[in-house]
Amino acid sequence: MATALIILAAGKGTRMKSDLPKVLHPIAGAPLLVHAMKSAVPLDAERTIVVAGHGAEAVEKAALNWNPEAQVVVQAEQLGTAHAVAQAKEVLDGFEGTAIVLYGDTPFISSETLEALQEKQASTDVVVLGFDAADPARYGRLVTNGDTLEKIVEFKDASEVERAITLCNSGVVAADAQTLFLLIEAVGNDNAAGEYYLTDIIGIARDRRLSTAVVRCDEAETLGINSRAELVAAEAAFQTRARQAALDDGVAMAAPETVYFAHDTVVGRDAIIEPNVVFASGVTVESGATIRAFSHLEGCHVSRDAVVGPYARLRPGAELQEAAKVGNFVEVKNAVLAEGAKVNHLSYIGDAEIGARTNVGAGTITCNYDGVFKHKTTVGEDAFIGSNTMLVAPVTIGHEAMTASGSVITSDVPDGDLAVARGRQDNKKGLARRMFEKLKSKKAKQAKGA
Amino acid sequence: MATALIILAAGKGTRMKSDLPKVLHPIAGAPLLVHAMKSAVPLDAERTIVVAGHGAEAVEKAALNWNPEAQVVVQAEQLGTAHAVAQAKEVLDGFEGTAIVLYGDTPFISSETLEALQEKQASTDVVVLGFDAADPARYGRLVTNGDTLEKIVEFKDASEVERAITLCNSGVVAADAQTLFLLIEAVGNDNAAGEYYLTDIIGIARDRRLSTAVVRCDEAETLGINSRAELVAAEAAFQTRARQAALDDGVAMAAPETVYFAHDTVVGRDAIIEPNVVFASGVTVESGATIRAFSHLEGCHVSRDAVVGPYARLRPGAELQEAAKVGNFVEVKNAVLAEGAKVNHLSYIGDAEIGARTNVGAGTITCNYDGVFKHKTTVGEDAFIGSNTMLVAPVTIGHEAMTASGSVITSDVPDGDLAVARGRQDNKKGLARRMFEKLKSKKAKQAKGA
Amino acid sequence: MATALIILAAGKGTRMKSDLPKVLHPIAGAPLLVHAMKSAVPLDAERTIVVAGHGAEAVEKAALNWNPEAQVVVQAEQLGTAHAVAQAKEVLDGFEGTAIVLYGDTPFISSETLEALQEKQASTDVVVLGFDAADPARYGRLVTNGDTLEKIVEFKDASEVERAITLCNSGVVAADAQTLFLLIEAVGNDNAAGEYYLTDIIGIARDRRLSTAVVRCDEAETLGINSRAELVAAEAAFQTRARQAALDDGVAMAAPETVYFAHDTVVGRDAIIEPNVVFASGVTVESGATIRAFSHLEGCHVSRDAVVGPYARLRPGAELQEAAKVGNFVEVKNAVLAEGAKVNHLSYIGDAEIGARTNVGAGTITCNYDGVFKHKTTVGEDAFIGSNTMLVAPVTIGHEAMTASGSVITSDVPDGDLAVARGRQDNKKGLARRMFEKLKSKKAKQAKGA
Repeated sequence: MATALIILAAGKGTRMKSDLPKVLHPIAGAPLLVHAMKSAVPLDAERTIVVAGHGAEAVEKAALNWNPEAQVVVQAEQLGTAHAVAQAKEVLDGFEGTAIVLYGDTPFISSETLEALQEKQASTDVVVLGFDAADPARYGRLVTNGDTLEKIVEFKDASEVERAITLCNSGVVAADAQTLFLLIEAVGNDNAAGEYYLTDIIGIARDRRLSTAVVRCDEAETLGINSRAELVAAEAAFQTRARQAALDDGVAMAAPETVYFAHDTVVGRDAIIEPNVVFASGVTVESGATIRAFSHLEGCHVSRDAVVGPYARLRPGAELQEAAKVGNFVEVKNAVLAEGAKVNHLSYIGDAEIGARTNVGAGTITCNYDGVFKHKTTVGEDAFIGSNTMLVAPVTIGHEAMTASGSVITSDVPDGDLAVARGRQDNKKGLARRMFEKLKSKKAKQAKGA
Repeated sequence: MATALIILAAGKGTRMKSDLPKVLHPIAGAPLLVHAMKSAVPLDAERTIVVAGHGAEAVEKAALNWNPEAQVVVQAEQLGTAHAVAQAKEVLDGFEGTAIVLYGDTPFISSETLEALQEKQASTDVVVLGFDAADPARYGRLVTNGDTLEKIVEFKDASEVERAITLCNSGVVAADAQTLFLLIEAVGNDNAAGEYYLTDIIGIARDRRLSTAVVRCDEAETLGINSRAELVAAEAAFQTRARQAALDDGVAMAAPETVYFAHDTVVGRDAIIEPNVVFASGVTVESGATIRAFSHLEGCHVSRDAVVGPYARLRPGAELQEAAKVGNFVEVKNAVLAEGAKVNHLSYIGDAEIGARTNVGAGTITCNYDGVFKHKTTVGEDAFIGSNTMLVAPVTIGHEAMTASGSVITSDVPDGDLAVARGRQDNKKGLARRMFEKLKSKKAKQAKGA
Repeated sequence: MATALIILAAGKGTRMKSDLPKVLHPIAGAPLLVHAMKSAVPLDAERTIVVAGHGAEAVEKAALNWNPEAQVVVQAEQLGTAHAVAQAKEVLDGFEGTAIVLYGDTPFISSETLEALQEKQASTDVVVLGFDAADPARYGRLVTNGDTLEKIVEFKDASEVERAITLCNSGVVAADAQTLFLLIEAVGNDNAAGEYYLTDIIGIARDRRLSTAVVRCDEAETLGINSRAELVAAEAAFQTRARQAALDDGVAMAAPETVYFAHDTVVGRDAIIEPNVVFASGVTVESGATIRAFSHLEGCHVSRDAVVGPYARLRPGAELQEAAKVGNFVEVKNAVLAEGAKVNHLSYIGDAEIGARTNVGAGTITCNYDGVFKHKTTVGEDAFIGSNTMLVAPVTIGHEAMTASGSVITSDVPDGDLAVARGRQDNKKGLARRMFEKLKSKKAKQAKGA
């Protein structure tokens, strides 16, 4: 059956003390909203509706960036969760299937849980996601009878017996889409806050003799983010899980507590990750590759037996083929290093292709920017780029070609040629000594004058 | 009423296993002594007397560095706390007002606590700072009757009833200055250690029918430092508080446990601090600025929307104006980067002014040092400094001027000009290939010979 | 009496999920196997036999790398611990003395414990190393009578009374060598796994009226490594002890939890180690030296008052003499920096000697590699290497000599001379402005066309 996601993402998040809308605060390099959307990927939803409010434009951008087919509807006033869901009614007009209501500030609901919800809804009108709370505190309680959800009771309205229930309401709901909108129409706002609450649909559904049920998940999945401290705790929880998973997969890490993974990092078995490595989004590290200490990787691919760092920065589009090496204080951006190519020290390689087995000397810079445009550098195989070579792009260096140290290369170098572009050395006899003496005597005079 | 601080800072700190006097060991980039002096700032003390002993010269330097009006007196022999306070008598001859005795190895007494002491002393002859100890252990106990301090009893002399008291002595005392010195004169050294103890003044004051009282503070404030392990614990306590405060203020930090603050770091709301950032003293980061991973900042100012790092080092005098950018492997010292200026890669910018919107290419170095003197570099607005430009200071580059990649600029470049200072490229046909062959055949011969 | 070590190192370590043999996984930069061998150094063993199996070649290499006199025997099939020990029989034919059986995956048995075993064995036929387990779980129990070991009973065979024993079997055994091999010959494999167990020798020894005893150690020493999670825990335990030991010795560390020590790091009293420093193997830091944040050191020596970092990388063979300085984004390899020499920024110094008090400017590179061979650079005392100098090795710069900024130095510079090797500056009037305009208009056209 078809599925539609309705993701509530309108809140401001006042307690975050931020101008950024709450659902755009990141965990592991992705906005909370994207985590919520990502968990739902296996549901294969035909429609994704994001209900935005505060910072709607930025929220829309983030949503479409992750899923270009998502639709964003705006909840101009925040009048409660039922009101928020109601904003999706028009765009889901005529949609037949399951609607699942998720929260943009609740990033950890697992795919397995969502699949269980989806499956349960196929045979039930309305399904609520519940969890056994270690400390139920002031959560709403789910009153059940066997598999049937009898009611959701708010803590303040609960009897002693009901308060003893530990099964609590996560807020996540799955229902037949058109049924959901019909139920919501019946929700009133006769409460202290004057808001329309989604939870009220259960009572209405029961009155209408619709079937209602509960699906259970771990409490950790239902963690919602309302403050920076909660965001930090969620990030820490993510990292702990990611580090453990990597160790379980056979990744070697001496100090996993100093390695930061992104939401989509992929690292192969027997890859070595030294202390103090940061992965931003979009990184794949193959088996047997080594990422040395103090490295920073984003949007790049590191192949088998390649070695990165220490102090290497790989930026988006960096592609290291087998046994390529990127050493200390080297930045690589939008560049391919073919098999066995080496850039070992103090270099900037941007918008470039470096051929197999080529050695790029210390201090080499691809001068790829003319102030307005970016240009490409191509270096052939088995070439030798002398230290401190400036490769002024667009420029091509041939196979087995060489550049002399300190050269500024502005035109192409054919295969096998040696390019030299620098001044001739002249030793000025005794001049250093005279200059030192002059400077020191000047300093002595100044000291005397002072 | 006037206030004088008497800060005891004569101890050697044998357990630190260090040649550095104990009070000069740092927390969050400032000596313990400075933390003690800093907390007292809101008291607006007219006089600050530091009683130094071990390493007195270094202690004096640190004290005056923080407060040039502080006076340092030397306690040649360490004969106890009362003896230490007595060293301040001469310089406070004729001083009318409150004297507060603090300890240079006790960095965390809060300003609020000191103000409470100051206020209480206005109506009491002698006030002692006490704290409720979670584990009173061998601390001296404060025996009170209502607000009145009846006596301080050392653990070894305490009765069972007295040992049950959890209110303990911090050692901090506030008293009328001249009264304090009169009381101290009556203190004897008839004890096992043969020392003069400041705590004895309470008994003497009570005998003389002077009023004595207690002000209470949190135990955490009274933490004294006697070993490197305690120093580490104090640093950790400081960092935990600083990180929490930053989060509460709306600073975005994914991994606050990897961010190290200095005693005076200021970071604005919605500033982003990535993992592994170290703040040394004197840093201000405005709202909306971003400090990327692995950056190190000291004595600098980062304005709104500026981006620093990853791997950027800002040293004292670095000033980044709005939306300026300092990228990876870049060091900036005593230099202003005007609005929108960019230094993105592998550069050293020292003693310089870089104009608005100017782009400084990778590998650029301001050659500011001639072996004896430092010189200044000035670059205009909308200029373009080509990669690997050496700016040999003193030198001025005009607005909209440009330098060619790999140029050594020794004379000024007028507005709008392009400066070129480099050799012409010459491709030597087939020479690289011949050189490779020669080297390889030499290697083969060596291998054969070996 | 002579001692022989038999170290069992044949296991694959399936739970490590790795192609690396289990005993070669590192802690603090050394393989587990080396930790086991290193603890035994004070025993002054005449013979060291490593029983290898999985990855025997790599295990042999690691063993010989640590102790070139070690002998490696191969256990082709893994048929149990007694079978493993039996592989050492032939190479120990005729050996008179103590044999101690250790485990290559058990890195933390202390030297003191091994010495106690060695001593006890002198007066006892067979000695087993036991430990009091906090949670004995399924360990084998040691049944003792006074000092005598009566039997080792496996958990599954133990009576209730025996299960209440907390003294457990570590597996480590010391015995008269030839007695050990005789006992092992009597061990059978009539058990569920069909393996030959070393523990069975105790029963056999008792039957033969040989003397048997227990030596006790801390449970933490007996930690064995079977999974990546256990490896991480062992690394963490090592680091905690190493950090504590450094603090106890008077090393200054503000954030010891971010400092990673190797198995052989030596740091002197009052050395300062800032946050985020990684020590690989072979580093000595003298008293009073400073290692600033984000530094990475391996195989190097840092003398008194030298300052390293932040962001400095010292590689094997780096030797910093007194008060030498290596600053940010600098890599030093196989090079001596004499007293007071400075390399402050963005440089690569490899295969070099830098004289006393010499200042090496920012961006300097020793071009030590011609694609096949490495060559040496020598710089005299009181010299001044201008920024961005390329020192094309082999090359020698004299005392008090100077190189002009941006020079490529290919021939020697005599004492006191100034070497210049660069193009002359030419300011092309208005050309920058014209180029900017052209680029901008091109961009505008493209935008229009798009």
